[in-house]
Amino acid sequence: MTENRLTLQIPLRWGDMDAYGHINNVEIVRILEEARVHALGQPTGTGLPGDEVPIPVFNDLPVGVQILAVEHRIRYLAPLSYRNIPARVELWVSSLKGASLTLAYAIYDPVAGTKCVIAETVLVFFNEPGAAVLRVAPRHRERLAVLLGESDFR
Amino acid sequence: MTENRLTLQIPLRWGDMDAYGHINNVEIVRILEEARVHALGQPTGTGLPGDEVPIPVFNDLPVGVQILAVEHRIRYLAPLSYRNIPARVELWVSSLKGASLTLAYAIYDPVAGTKCVIAETVLVFFNEPGAAVLRVAPRHRERLAVLLGESDFR
Amino acid sequence: MTENRLTLQIPLRWGDMDAYGHINNVEIVRILEEARVHALGQPTGTGLPGDEVPIPVFNDLPVGVQILAVEHRIRYLAPLSYRNIPARVELWVSSLKGASLTLAYAIYDPVAGTKCVIAETVLVFFNEPGAAVLRVAPRHRERLAVLLGESDFR
Amino acid sequence: MTENRLTLQIPLRWGDMDAYGHINNVEIVRILEEARVHALGQPTGTGLPGDEVPIPVFNDLPVGVQILAVEHRIRYLAPLSYRNIPARVELWVSSLKGASLTLAYAIYDPVAGTKCVIAETVLVFFNEPGAAVLRVAPRHRERLAVLLGESDFR
Repeated sequence: MTENRLTLQIPLRWGDMDAYGHINNVEIVRILEEARVHALGQPTGTGLPGDEVPIPVFNDLPVGVQILAVEHRIRYLAPLSYRNIPARVELWVSSLKGASLTLAYAIYDPVAGTKCVIAETVLVFFNEPGAAVLRVAPRHRERLAVLLGESDFR
Repeated sequence: MTENRLTLQIPLRWGDMDAYGHINNVEIVRILEEARVHALGQPTGTGLPGDEVPIPVFNDLPVGVQILAVEHRIRYLAPLSYRNIPARVELWVSSLKGASLTLAYAIYDPVAGTKCVIAETVLVFFNEPGAAVLRVAPRHRERLAVLLGESDFR
Repeated sequence: MTENRLTLQIPLRWGDMDAYGHINNVEIVRILEEARVHALGQPTGTGLPGDEVPIPVFNDLPVGVQILAVEHRIRYLAPLSYRNIPARVELWVSSLKGASLTLAYAIYDPVAGTKCVIAETVLVFFNEPGAAVLRVAPRHRERLAVLLGESDFR
Repeated sequence: MTENRLTLQIPLRWGDMDAYGHINNVEIVRILEEARVHALGQPTGTGLPGDEVPIPVFNDLPVGVQILAVEHRIRYLAPLSYRNIPARVELWVSSLKGASLTLAYAIYDPVAGTKCVIAETVLVFFNEPGAAVLRVAPRHRERLAVLLGESDFR
């Protein structure tokens, strides 16, 4: 069942390739970051307005609240190669706790359809001025719950 | 006169911002690289096929030939900020010599329309096995000539 | 017990900071990559010779063999800030199997001593021409065994 | 005459290489940025304290003042390859005006000694709150004047 997953088109860059000629494993993590922002919005206080996002959460946080990656887990199933066509990224929520959430992703080659990467990121919302982790607000919880699905890590 | 310029949509990444909260000046150079590849093709031997490009040159070079940046000139007119909308990049050819070409670019904020950057890159085609700079092939010269226009650096 | 851990000095870059003013979580993964290369050598066929490395493995692989990251796990314990002093990175081996190895790392702020990141990377050696995962060679196993230690993920 | 040039050791990263196996031309610009910071200090308000720098200017600006790159010119003379030894970077001042300065750089392969890159960056100090370019303060002018030398672009 994948009907609760967002599907995003995240562009690659020629410069993401390393000396092996693959999209470098580090740049994959950059692509995950960009997928998060396209799905959940630009962190409050950064960048300028653009298109509306499907699940506005990051751009709906109070000023001074930062979104911190607490943990990444990334499994590389097959090399991803650069194309001038965006990678297909599925994004969903594999866990939603009181004060943290886990985003799950799968990255596919946009032409061959190969599943190249699965990954998860645990995020918290951190109130910098107060130096405290915030609880996920009810309206954000509601929006994120729409994307709840099983982890691909088994 | 700008009718000979290609207009490209080059996506930004949230991670292109630096501690000042602007698209970092180094990442601007990355955006120029990506614009080149979207306009003229993926360098032969790198990446996998994608969409056809408007002016196929880089992807039409013999195996073993590399495209080398010989000189960059980049003028930052106004800060560019991250949006989840691609930057608008105009790309043209400001000089076409026997064995080199100069690409010219202008980067615009996609919402405000502000001209943020003008830049030029001198490129040569380098035959790695033979360690020699190649002349621009007649068919490439013909395609590139369509984009000939005046330099913005004046 | 940490006597089996290598201690490496891995320089940060001002540009590793993101719009939050921290070393970006993606650049942390870049720092892990650089720590691997400083500890185990430059992958065969890439770059040019430099200083000898403590545990020569990556630079001792046959031509055509690539080192592939199969899985990363990265836990961010505290934000790492840019300093013009290299970060202190401990690197060891938390698992050594027939055809894969797990590198473990801890990143410390070089002044405050704060433990900012723990991470693990599962690597395999992939024979590109033969499209096969190689077994870890006995001489490499011997060198890597010196670094064997417990995982920090517990 | 090069006695007025600072010599800096700026580390490369394996990930700076692109699909051609060279230090990518964009990452060269990153190396220039890092050289600036090592020479003139961390921009006020970014990062945490580290070693003292030879010419404290960037870290001696008032809060709210940003250092903006206004123009880069970069000439690539020879490919730079990754080594686990820092590149040698010479840095000097090729122009010092009322409200701007031009930094000049030369990057050398640290083993072969090949001069790989020459570059210049025009910088201004920008008072964000006041949205005004500042004049170079007399004490900064004095420090920078020590590094005055001829441009390599001739």
